Amino acid sequence: MLSKPIRKICVVITARPSYSRIKSALTAINMHPQLELQLVVAASALLDRYGKAFEYIEQDGFHIAAKVFNVLEGENLTAQAKTTGLGILELATVFENLKPDAVVTIADRFETMATAVAASYMNIPLVHIQGGEVTGSIDEKVRHAITKLADLHLVASEDAYQRVIKLGETEASVVITGCPSLDIALEVIQKDMPRFDPLSKYGGVGTDRFDPDDFVVVLQHPVTTEYYEARKQIEISLQAIKELDKSCLWFWPNVDAGSDGTSKGIRAFRENNPTSKIHFFKNMEPSDFLRLLLNSKCLIGNSSVGIRESSFLGIPVVDIGSRQAGRSRGANVLHVAYNQEDILSAIRYQLNHGKYNPENIYGDGKAGVRIADALANQPLTFDKKISY
Amino acid sequence: MLSKPIRKICVVITARPSYSRIKSALTAINMHPQLELQLVVAASALLDRYGKAFEYIEQDGFHIAAKVFNVLEGENLTAQAKTTGLGILELATVFENLKPDAVVTIADRFETMATAVAASYMNIPLVHIQGGEVTGSIDEKVRHAITKLADLHLVASEDAYQRVIKLGETEASVVITGCPSLDIALEVIQKDMPRFDPLSKYGGVGTDRFDPDDFVVVLQHPVTTEYYEARKQIEISLQAIKELDKSCLWFWPNVDAGSDGTSKGIRAFRENNPTSKIHFFKNMEPSDFLRLLLNSKCLIGNSSVGIRESSFLGIPVVDIGSRQAGRSRGANVLHVAYNQEDILSAIRYQLNHGKYNPENIYGDGKAGVRIADALANQPLTFDKKISY
Amino acid sequence: MLSKPIRKICVVITARPSYSRIKSALTAINMHPQLELQLVVAASALLDRYGKAFEYIEQDGFHIAAKVFNVLEGENLTAQAKTTGLGILELATVFENLKPDAVVTIADRFETMATAVAASYMNIPLVHIQGGEVTGSIDEKVRHAITKLADLHLVASEDAYQRVIKLGETEASVVITGCPSLDIALEVIQKDMPRFDPLSKYGGVGTDRFDPDDFVVVLQHPVTTEYYEARKQIEISLQAIKELDKSCLWFWPNVDAGSDGTSKGIRAFRENNPTSKIHFFKNMEPSDFLRLLLNSKCLIGNSSVGIRESSFLGIPVVDIGSRQAGRSRGANVLHVAYNQEDILSAIRYQLNHGKYNPENIYGDGKAGVRIADALANQPLTFDKKISY
Amino acid sequence: MLSKPIRKICVVITARPSYSRIKSALTAINMHPQLELQLVVAASALLDRYGKAFEYIEQDGFHIAAKVFNVLEGENLTAQAKTTGLGILELATVFENLKPDAVVTIADRFETMATAVAASYMNIPLVHIQGGEVTGSIDEKVRHAITKLADLHLVASEDAYQRVIKLGETEASVVITGCPSLDIALEVIQKDMPRFDPLSKYGGVGTDRFDPDDFVVVLQHPVTTEYYEARKQIEISLQAIKELDKSCLWFWPNVDAGSDGTSKGIRAFRENNPTSKIHFFKNMEPSDFLRLLLNSKCLIGNSSVGIRESSFLGIPVVDIGSRQAGRSRGANVLHVAYNQEDILSAIRYQLNHGKYNPENIYGDGKAGVRIADALANQPLTFDKKISY
Repeated sequence: MLSKPIRKICVVITARPSYSRIKSALTAINMHPQLELQLVVAASALLDRYGKAFEYIEQDGFHIAAKVFNVLEGENLTAQAKTTGLGILELATVFENLKPDAVVTIADRFETMATAVAASYMNIPLVHIQGGEVTGSIDEKVRHAITKLADLHLVASEDAYQRVIKLGETEASVVITGCPSLDIALEVIQKDMPRFDPLSKYGGVGTDRFDPDDFVVVLQHPVTTEYYEARKQIEISLQAIKELDKSCLWFWPNVDAGSDGTSKGIRAFRENNPTSKIHFFKNMEPSDFLRLLLNSKCLIGNSSVGIRESSFLGIPVVDIGSRQAGRSRGANVLHVAYNQEDILSAIRYQLNHGKYNPENIYGDGKAGVRIADALANQPLTFDKKISY
Repeated sequence: MLSKPIRKICVVITARPSYSRIKSALTAINMHPQLELQLVVAASALLDRYGKAFEYIEQDGFHIAAKVFNVLEGENLTAQAKTTGLGILELATVFENLKPDAVVTIADRFETMATAVAASYMNIPLVHIQGGEVTGSIDEKVRHAITKLADLHLVASEDAYQRVIKLGETEASVVITGCPSLDIALEVIQKDMPRFDPLSKYGGVGTDRFDPDDFVVVLQHPVTTEYYEARKQIEISLQAIKELDKSCLWFWPNVDAGSDGTSKGIRAFRENNPTSKIHFFKNMEPSDFLRLLLNSKCLIGNSSVGIRESSFLGIPVVDIGSRQAGRSRGANVLHVAYNQEDILSAIRYQLNHGKYNPENIYGDGKAGVRIADALANQPLTFDKKISY
Repeated sequence: MLSKPIRKICVVITARPSYSRIKSALTAINMHPQLELQLVVAASALLDRYGKAFEYIEQDGFHIAAKVFNVLEGENLTAQAKTTGLGILELATVFENLKPDAVVTIADRFETMATAVAASYMNIPLVHIQGGEVTGSIDEKVRHAITKLADLHLVASEDAYQRVIKLGETEASVVITGCPSLDIALEVIQKDMPRFDPLSKYGGVGTDRFDPDDFVVVLQHPVTTEYYEARKQIEISLQAIKELDKSCLWFWPNVDAGSDGTSKGIRAFRENNPTSKIHFFKNMEPSDFLRLLLNSKCLIGNSSVGIRESSFLGIPVVDIGSRQAGRSRGANVLHVAYNQEDILSAIRYQLNHGKYNPENIYGDGKAGVRIADALANQPLTFDKKISY
Repeated sequence: MLSKPIRKICVVITARPSYSRIKSALTAINMHPQLELQLVVAASALLDRYGKAFEYIEQDGFHIAAKVFNVLEGENLTAQAKTTGLGILELATVFENLKPDAVVTIADRFETMATAVAASYMNIPLVHIQGGEVTGSIDEKVRHAITKLADLHLVASEDAYQRVIKLGETEASVVITGCPSLDIALEVIQKDMPRFDPLSKYGGVGTDRFDPDDFVVVLQHPVTTEYYEARKQIEISLQAIKELDKSCLWFWPNVDAGSDGTSKGIRAFRENNPTSKIHFFKNMEPSDFLRLLLNSKCLIGNSSVGIRESSFLGIPVVDIGSRQAGRSRGANVLHVAYNQEDILSAIRYQLNHGKYNPENIYGDGKAGVRIADALANQPLTFDKKISY
């Protein structure tokens, strides 16, 4: 009897949060007897300013097959387009040399279009993780366009499955795996890990006081299509947290047009508020972040962590603005606009409410293994036609 | 009362056939009091090997605002990906400097993705001409992905309208204009132009005999995802035409992975068949081409001209292979696979049948003006969300 | 009698300091009846982080024909190489569309190689301003390589003239014009302009005390080939200035591999020394900078301003490290290594010495007009052969 | 005692003739205990149209570490610039991932500038093979500019050594190795190989008659800076050979602006002269080519083979035009301009003269081993300063 040939699976990681989402799947691919992992690290995942994700990746024991620097300076929209164009140029060469059997692209960041175009144009079966969701901004266009380029869709939820089908993909090409970011959350819950001091482990800047028993977490990204608003938005949240006057861990946003406005807003706030109770971090290992989140009183901002992991963990969330609009959400999420009073009152409501019951909307914490299984067993093709 | 500001409309043309399709719209844009045309010519539309479309464009009196050379040599799939990546890099700079109010991209050639990504990433409203159709090969992925990036859809047919809506676009963002390539066809019918001798006007190579009263036309492109088959396919058609033994005008294919196989097949045939009745052309003004088509007995190959213009003109068509699969077609089209006997017998059937009744499936020949009107009057936005 | 045709002169500016150097020549080109200026602004001259030189350029009334964003993020050596590669890709398109009769590249920053390669490869006569000098680091390789690509050399000094000849260029192709940066210095000396308050005019960060009668100026760039040393070097200088305990205006470095280390060093210093007497600026109009320099007691750092303008103005200079090594220098320059005590003692020596006699080593302040004359009257060719 | 660490030597091959020149050095590097070869194949060396050098490389048993497609279509000067820009972008990534201890660039083709800029900007010691020579066209600028970027110069002749020193390089950094292309020539002389039939082994097009005892060889490249002349030049040579009326092996030129004119000239000639005695080849293994050359009566054209290998083999040469102007040459070379009568009369002179005495101007056939030794033993640095 002939054994099936090993499939070479090339996963392209372009940003710190994408790594968190895919980590458990990487482990499962590495352990799967029918799969060989080819890991490519590119874009902001290589940059100091965005937390040098590649160092965590290497520390976690993954071998990086190729690094691709392709981020254009400017943090404006022209730079986003060019970063993507350069990514295509370089990833085409990487794929030419690695000759993968399938390429995996994760979610919907603007630069992931480079992975999708290079692979699909080279007739390499393209696997899209986390398609079928709905958000605002350029991510919305990117996500659905990648669905139309992709050949195999590994989605996080029933809701996403239905949307991908409506987009004209065949049922046979869509598999619900759950979101792999919940795999780390499950591990954090299951392992009874001792507390750690984030300030001494990760440095960061701001206050050196931190109350491990009573604190909130903020994670707020700039919203691409509201470029000029980025600074104003971050200032509103900063003022709300200042007025809250509670121990706070604030995480730096990742690379996006507008993040310069965000960064400046944060820097100006720090200069003018040297005694605030906020401590700022640039980066953190995902599992450490989730351990902190699990012990926090509330998550504030516009990160997808508020929608996915927090729902699974039962953490109260104040979701600000349009960035997560349209996504399936649990009972734990309270939505507000960019308004200082509304944000503050929502935080107080959530602090008063306390923990919520966990929900499995985005999976059960076992997505990584399901993704590896799908990569090993689903047909890998590259020629498709719309279903209607 | 304040007058509406002039809208700057940047149209990007990347290939000879795209120019034919959009020409009447360019004229209508130039004549519209609310519109200013910014014409960008790129990719194979600049290259000698593919007929130097830019020379025709300039001869027709259009001002070219920028030329962008971005075709990678190789005619393989890696080169297609890189051509697209380079196109994004350069078009981003062009858009940065021209600052258009909207960017227009035409149809579904692989490199048009560059226009779509650059414009949508830069928050410039993206207008897509001829979305919503169905074909085989990479065009199919490209077309629907561009629909998901585009903000305004100017489609050719009712069928295409329905498909774009199903893809999650709002009804308000889709306008049926008809296909602008029919505008030239209508003009050719309406103007009673004298015959001309294509060999003396356009040169070309092959036989110097041409029977203007009894000839067929061939237009056959390589099919991207059947790369290695390109040479074999062209040889089958060449042998069928050789056996037909009738005066034949054969048009060189445009740039695509595989066209090297096609070119080689044609060159080898010519060396081995110096006395065949085929004359080969690299390029021709669209209206001259349609005048010839109107007088021809049959169109053979896999060009969309067989589906669109020929249906409007009532010309018998033998459509070979998968390239036009899934497109709405008229009674004039007979489909066959790549098989020499089948092709020959289909041609004989069509020669026997003679002209068909004209059909308006892809428009009525007035698309150009409708496109200009839509560009002047439709809302131009760049932030959208899927409708389901 | 036939009049000579107008020559289209394309000047490519890639950084803030390059603009200062070339400004008077741009004015002279604009005023010359035989010349037409085509101004291209690229690279860090477009970026917020490096002082948005393009805004000053537009405020000075120059029309920008094209903007090219090509800086790769990373501030490492790979990013420098890629910035240059991308610059070639894009400048080739710009030159294709502008069709200049000559292209002017300024000095020796790494990304100017892009201008030199694109122009020389396209057979456009290449004019190099400020070749023939000697420094350390990658600039040294870049400068002489550009000399070998350039067709016309407009040099700053007799010393530079001799070196370009030794490099195998013909005497007919080298013209001593003086350095155009001195033109602004001459203007500052000649116009008796009132004092201005730099803090209120330019903002910046740091102390709000400034003693206009007794202050020093610091301008220290990272040195490319000593990448890992960048942070250490800046810290040594910061500590020396701290110990000096005198009013100080410190100017942020421009884009170079290593500037991240420099920036971090400055930020850390500011956090730890909130009461220091240093005020930091990101950018300043060149003439304002020179007015301040003229009133300062000493210039400290490794900028070429210490070698050129300061010698012309007679300002005492403490030149640190290898960056300016090998350049002709006046009596006003005291050289020291990166050693806190040496730096401090050199500054004290210069403060004690006071102003020096002005020297004309790098020109007499009339370079701009000479450059325009050379561009109008020198033969423009692109085919050359080494002279030995 | 500690052993010296292995040096990783990255050799970048961008064209078929560069491979011939470096082949013996590659073998010597592979066999050297202190060296590890990292072979990168790029540009026209990967393309079908230029003879797929990479297939010969692989057949010869060399492992290719990375392939880089970077040739822009167009065969004009803009395409040459862009090919170089793209090469820098991609080679930077390749070097980032391979981390070589030194990069080797060969000779002076336009696209080799990409290797030189990427390596030198990344502070990787750059080794230049065959600097210090003199020719016409853009190669002349490229070669000397690369000398100014390179850190170690392995030159072919005493003449070249002197010129590199005059360019300001230190004596310690220049080593005379001889030209490695002569190594293959020496091997061909030493091995007494049986004759072979080039038509049956390599195919090609044109006459099927070939007189192995009485034939000439033509190798004529387009000259970049005489772009529009390319077609005219090739026609002159074709007419001269037609009039000569002797068995002729003609080799297709490699990629350069203008080669389209050359190709067209050849194609038109073949159509109009179906009975000429010329047989055309696209490519041939270097050792087979030299075996044929050794048996030929005369080499005609403008290839460096006429200057180097032919002098070493004593073959009569008619060198046409400016391409090899300024190079040291042996008694075997007769120079003529692009004039049909002059070319014909020079060929007849050479046929009458017969073989010349071999000369060692460009080496003794042992360059490969000397290059490997230099790579193993010379200091590898990247920081240099002009010597005057």
